Amino acid sequence: MNLVNVAVVGASGYSGQELLRLLVRHPGVELVCVTSRQYAGRTIGEVYPRFEGRKFARLKFTGSDAAAVVASGARFAFLALPHGLAHEYAAPLLDAGLRVIDLSADFRLKDPAVYEDFYGVAHPAPQLLSRSVYGLPELYRDHIRTASLIASPGCYPTSILLPLIPLMRQRLIDPKSIVAASLSGVSGAGRKTEVDYLFCECNEDARAYGIPKHRHLSEIEQELTTVAGEPVVISFAPHLIPLNRGMATTIHANLGPGVGIRDIAGALTEAWKSEPFVRLKGETGSADIKNVAHTNFIDIAWRHDPRTGRVVLMSAIDNLVKGASGQAVQSFNILGGWAETVAL
Amino acid sequence: MNLVNVAVVGASGYSGQELLRLLVRHPGVELVCVTSRQYAGRTIGEVYPRFEGRKFARLKFTGSDAAAVVASGARFAFLALPHGLAHEYAAPLLDAGLRVIDLSADFRLKDPAVYEDFYGVAHPAPQLLSRSVYGLPELYRDHIRTASLIASPGCYPTSILLPLIPLMRQRLIDPKSIVAASLSGVSGAGRKTEVDYLFCECNEDARAYGIPKHRHLSEIEQELTTVAGEPVVISFAPHLIPLNRGMATTIHANLGPGVGIRDIAGALTEAWKSEPFVRLKGETGSADIKNVAHTNFIDIAWRHDPRTGRVVLMSAIDNLVKGASGQAVQSFNILGGWAETVAL
Amino acid sequence: MNLVNVAVVGASGYSGQELLRLLVRHPGVELVCVTSRQYAGRTIGEVYPRFEGRKFARLKFTGSDAAAVVASGARFAFLALPHGLAHEYAAPLLDAGLRVIDLSADFRLKDPAVYEDFYGVAHPAPQLLSRSVYGLPELYRDHIRTASLIASPGCYPTSILLPLIPLMRQRLIDPKSIVAASLSGVSGAGRKTEVDYLFCECNEDARAYGIPKHRHLSEIEQELTTVAGEPVVISFAPHLIPLNRGMATTIHANLGPGVGIRDIAGALTEAWKSEPFVRLKGETGSADIKNVAHTNFIDIAWRHDPRTGRVVLMSAIDNLVKGASGQAVQSFNILGGWAETVAL
Amino acid sequence: MNLVNVAVVGASGYSGQELLRLLVRHPGVELVCVTSRQYAGRTIGEVYPRFEGRKFARLKFTGSDAAAVVASGARFAFLALPHGLAHEYAAPLLDAGLRVIDLSADFRLKDPAVYEDFYGVAHPAPQLLSRSVYGLPELYRDHIRTASLIASPGCYPTSILLPLIPLMRQRLIDPKSIVAASLSGVSGAGRKTEVDYLFCECNEDARAYGIPKHRHLSEIEQELTTVAGEPVVISFAPHLIPLNRGMATTIHANLGPGVGIRDIAGALTEAWKSEPFVRLKGETGSADIKNVAHTNFIDIAWRHDPRTGRVVLMSAIDNLVKGASGQAVQSFNILGGWAETVAL
Repeated sequence: MNLVNVAVVGASGYSGQELLRLLVRHPGVELVCVTSRQYAGRTIGEVYPRFEGRKFARLKFTGSDAAAVVASGARFAFLALPHGLAHEYAAPLLDAGLRVIDLSADFRLKDPAVYEDFYGVAHPAPQLLSRSVYGLPELYRDHIRTASLIASPGCYPTSILLPLIPLMRQRLIDPKSIVAASLSGVSGAGRKTEVDYLFCECNEDARAYGIPKHRHLSEIEQELTTVAGEPVVISFAPHLIPLNRGMATTIHANLGPGVGIRDIAGALTEAWKSEPFVRLKGETGSADIKNVAHTNFIDIAWRHDPRTGRVVLMSAIDNLVKGASGQAVQSFNILGGWAETVAL
Repeated sequence: MNLVNVAVVGASGYSGQELLRLLVRHPGVELVCVTSRQYAGRTIGEVYPRFEGRKFARLKFTGSDAAAVVASGARFAFLALPHGLAHEYAAPLLDAGLRVIDLSADFRLKDPAVYEDFYGVAHPAPQLLSRSVYGLPELYRDHIRTASLIASPGCYPTSILLPLIPLMRQRLIDPKSIVAASLSGVSGAGRKTEVDYLFCECNEDARAYGIPKHRHLSEIEQELTTVAGEPVVISFAPHLIPLNRGMATTIHANLGPGVGIRDIAGALTEAWKSEPFVRLKGETGSADIKNVAHTNFIDIAWRHDPRTGRVVLMSAIDNLVKGASGQAVQSFNILGGWAETVAL
Repeated sequence: MNLVNVAVVGASGYSGQELLRLLVRHPGVELVCVTSRQYAGRTIGEVYPRFEGRKFARLKFTGSDAAAVVASGARFAFLALPHGLAHEYAAPLLDAGLRVIDLSADFRLKDPAVYEDFYGVAHPAPQLLSRSVYGLPELYRDHIRTASLIASPGCYPTSILLPLIPLMRQRLIDPKSIVAASLSGVSGAGRKTEVDYLFCECNEDARAYGIPKHRHLSEIEQELTTVAGEPVVISFAPHLIPLNRGMATTIHANLGPGVGIRDIAGALTEAWKSEPFVRLKGETGSADIKNVAHTNFIDIAWRHDPRTGRVVLMSAIDNLVKGASGQAVQSFNILGGWAETVAL
Repeated sequence: MNLVNVAVVGASGYSGQELLRLLVRHPGVELVCVTSRQYAGRTIGEVYPRFEGRKFARLKFTGSDAAAVVASGARFAFLALPHGLAHEYAAPLLDAGLRVIDLSADFRLKDPAVYEDFYGVAHPAPQLLSRSVYGLPELYRDHIRTASLIASPGCYPTSILLPLIPLMRQRLIDPKSIVAASLSGVSGAGRKTEVDYLFCECNEDARAYGIPKHRHLSEIEQELTTVAGEPVVISFAPHLIPLNRGMATTIHANLGPGVGIRDIAGALTEAWKSEPFVRLKGETGSADIKNVAHTNFIDIAWRHDPRTGRVVLMSAIDNLVKGASGQAVQSFNILGGWAETVAL
């Protein structure tokens, strides 16, 4: 297999580490550059002892400088930066002809006004929004193939969109009735040294947060609106639960008039039956985090509640894989012409 | 303080243990009888080493026999049995003049037909249903005071009813629009030796289950219906999360026409402001399990979502305390004339 | 019961919180002052929502100023400060006639040279070392009763000294052969916002650390040396394990010539049989953290290994209770003339 | 790559599952038979939903019958059975010409008398003991290559032997002085439905067990004795800690006369420097479970304690990988002529 040169910008967080884990396994990748302000000058193996003895363990982190990334000869760059910083790299890297896969939320919204509404600041590089493709392969595979800038979606949108999109497309549910609750492992909050994420603050605890207007609602609603052809606004309740990785989402929605559970099953099957990473668990199966942990799968199960006229959709993903780095690698495989499941 | 003789029937599960922990601290209780088929002949301290050195540690478990309970001289009996067995003890104990606090679901429903619908078998002692009082002190304090049979509610109903009741009473929300998601610690499943509850099956896992018709929906809807004065049917999604004890519940409901967040705050405050175990955390506070763990408190927070017109209610309890044994002791305090907070 | 005025200096860490939890339950305590640089001006209930609705919840934190503590009228002061700061408070508080219970390691060593050897700096207030009493009630109850400065021992020393002291006293084991391994819950590391103590760094992880010369070895060896009447140096391996609270310690030592397991059992029984917080579990029992969690007990079990000629001692405590705040309250009870078990 | 037919006998426990996970990734393996009494007739994907969508997911479990295994055409068979059952399969499979890799302890001891001493029953097939090779590749790679029966060691022996063997070989430590403490994740106890392994019994708990004569001591001492050329008896304290997978071991031993830490480092480096799965972390590194989780690595660190004259060795492995299934696959790779790291 021909090797392509790849850079990872900002590899010091949990999704950065997971990205390295996957790229180590990728037979087509030559990792030529990893950047980290904090760890510049030290090798991957020194910073993350879990990688010692693995491929690329001796590669040194460089400071976070777009010119250095370009100079490394990388043709693809993953950006695994905190929200709000990606544009500083994306613009010069794109100008230099690299193809960029951004794991942050910075390029996921099409409308700068929506960005400002949810993020509280003007978008720093609105001109890039029109170039970017929302990197959910199940929805935008063909656009991804030829894109130069991928805005790879995170865990909440992925776990909510994949169950809902087929139902919205066929207008099987009432868009106004959607209520989603998600349970996220603590790695979803990143590797921040804040009291809230200390072991003793999270262990034996669980709580809802970010209600009612979590930032990622903006992209969820953008994509649902596109599919529905009408403005969609939903309720979303994220929760933090005490596990390292994984996300379970449960969604309630009113069925449209005359819609039955067979229509639901049919729509999901038709939409996702050929997808390599979507597993449909049906009306009796369940969506358990442990079955998707450390994989790029999303498991989707559903139930009909004839008492309320609602459908209940359940999904499970690994927030660091299908909800972050695995999804980014899936897009990378599409971009680079590899089989979509390589390294996943 | 005068001592009263108390029996605990079926003290071998997690709520039984928690009950013992609380009764040990109760200055008015003389524990005269604990029963357990499995542990008959052994002392509390032998079976549960955590109680060694504590009051009552040398009391021996007797076999599970109602006559023995009566013979022990107990005037109050707690029943901490698996669902479906309580009636075998409740009837003879009531006949012998004891006051009975049952922690199971057996006497919580008023209508035997609803019981049969949700539990799949005919109620074994329907005549007792009319005698029982639903043991939620915040709702039925006055009835509890003079009752002989208390049906003490469990964790799901408690965590859902206390936030919703004040809103239903004042018709602030649309009863048809209620969607509740609850996250339960594993002790909620009891001390069952099943693969599903092994450490390695629960740790680093989370999942929804029992959707769409969990048994405890029946009592939740019964109480909401009573308050609303019209039949209420809701959506309910229980989830199992990897912690020992605690429950977090998030409820969405459509606000009625013209209803604002002040009405919500007002209704909750008016209803619960004098309750010793309800803490209202308001529109900015949160409902975290760690703040209620090992206590009898329920924390309730709320948010208005003007985008969807919904109110979001969040509650947190310790499933073994306010969601089981603490609640039972609270009722016991009311029955026995102690201050409601004794031992809690 | 007469109330005495009590202050807690530095109440913002995990042992500070646990101290508050215990003092809230103490019928003889009027909490008149809590200090915290970080939280000055806010109430206990605001900073720690778990205390809302409890006694003292509305008491405000004051800045960390010894004069303010004196002015509060406190007659007893607990110091729950990071190591190295206690002397700034102890000296003026003692001068003002308060009795001081320090939870840090600052006054536990008798020899300033040993302090400097293990802590790397000269002791800041060596004159206080001779005034302080090592606050292990099982060893120094009579000294504690009349002391003005208590140096309350932490979790590692407590879990190692209580099993070993009786054996050393009777010269049943070879002092040179002692090897102790301890497993500590993460709260033992304090409430530090460092990457190492983030949930995702501790969960699903365990590791030895601080080998071979952990700071607390100094006080362990000091006390063993005192009992043995000859210099004792031991091996000690602390480990961090993924739970909030608790410590399990396993100690190996060579039995002296002719010593049998009955001698071991005899020495432990004779030494601790009347202690309210020591539970001897014998040759078949075990020392499980879950049996001591949230209590002031230490459980001690032992085994004879005829193959190696060693005795194996196992102990379990709650690191925040018998290993910190519970032990301090036990000393406080002795100082103040309450029953030793009050609030514990 | 040529495919070889492989069978897994008894694939329903945790090491069986992990074995399947690794074999799915192995490019040289055609899985032709999996057996399980409990799951006969159901597919791997049905029983373990995590494997759905993966290679071999549709293979059905057959009943546990040696003849069926032979009939499947398998040339290699892994046995992942509870202790004591392996001989029922090993004998007929060997007779039929298969090469057998047993993950249990059944064929690890050379001396049937030692087996009876530690296991309490006579060995059921002593004639097989002389045919088996102890499957620790770092020790017996050449024997493994041509063996027909591999007795693959488990987690405790692996984590203790690899740090100790080089020091024993060069007589750097006093064999009589060895004290080992190991911390094991709960999966090490297997997938048993016993109260002791329920989530709520293990979570927030830790305890020593199996002291002083854990069964696996027998094979540890056998191997140490072989290397030392004299009988070696050690102290060993296993502990259960609340995580799914992983083992951390800390070993103390007295250094021989004149031996320094450079000798220790030298011996370990010389012995293991070319091993693909041994990572030497030196005198400043640490042995953390999280760095080896889900990998076949063993990390080994060490310290000198001049105060006691001891060396302290620390190791970390994933108990299900290097401590079970990964190690078995490593031997399989050697047997089959693949690169030793394939699938690992």
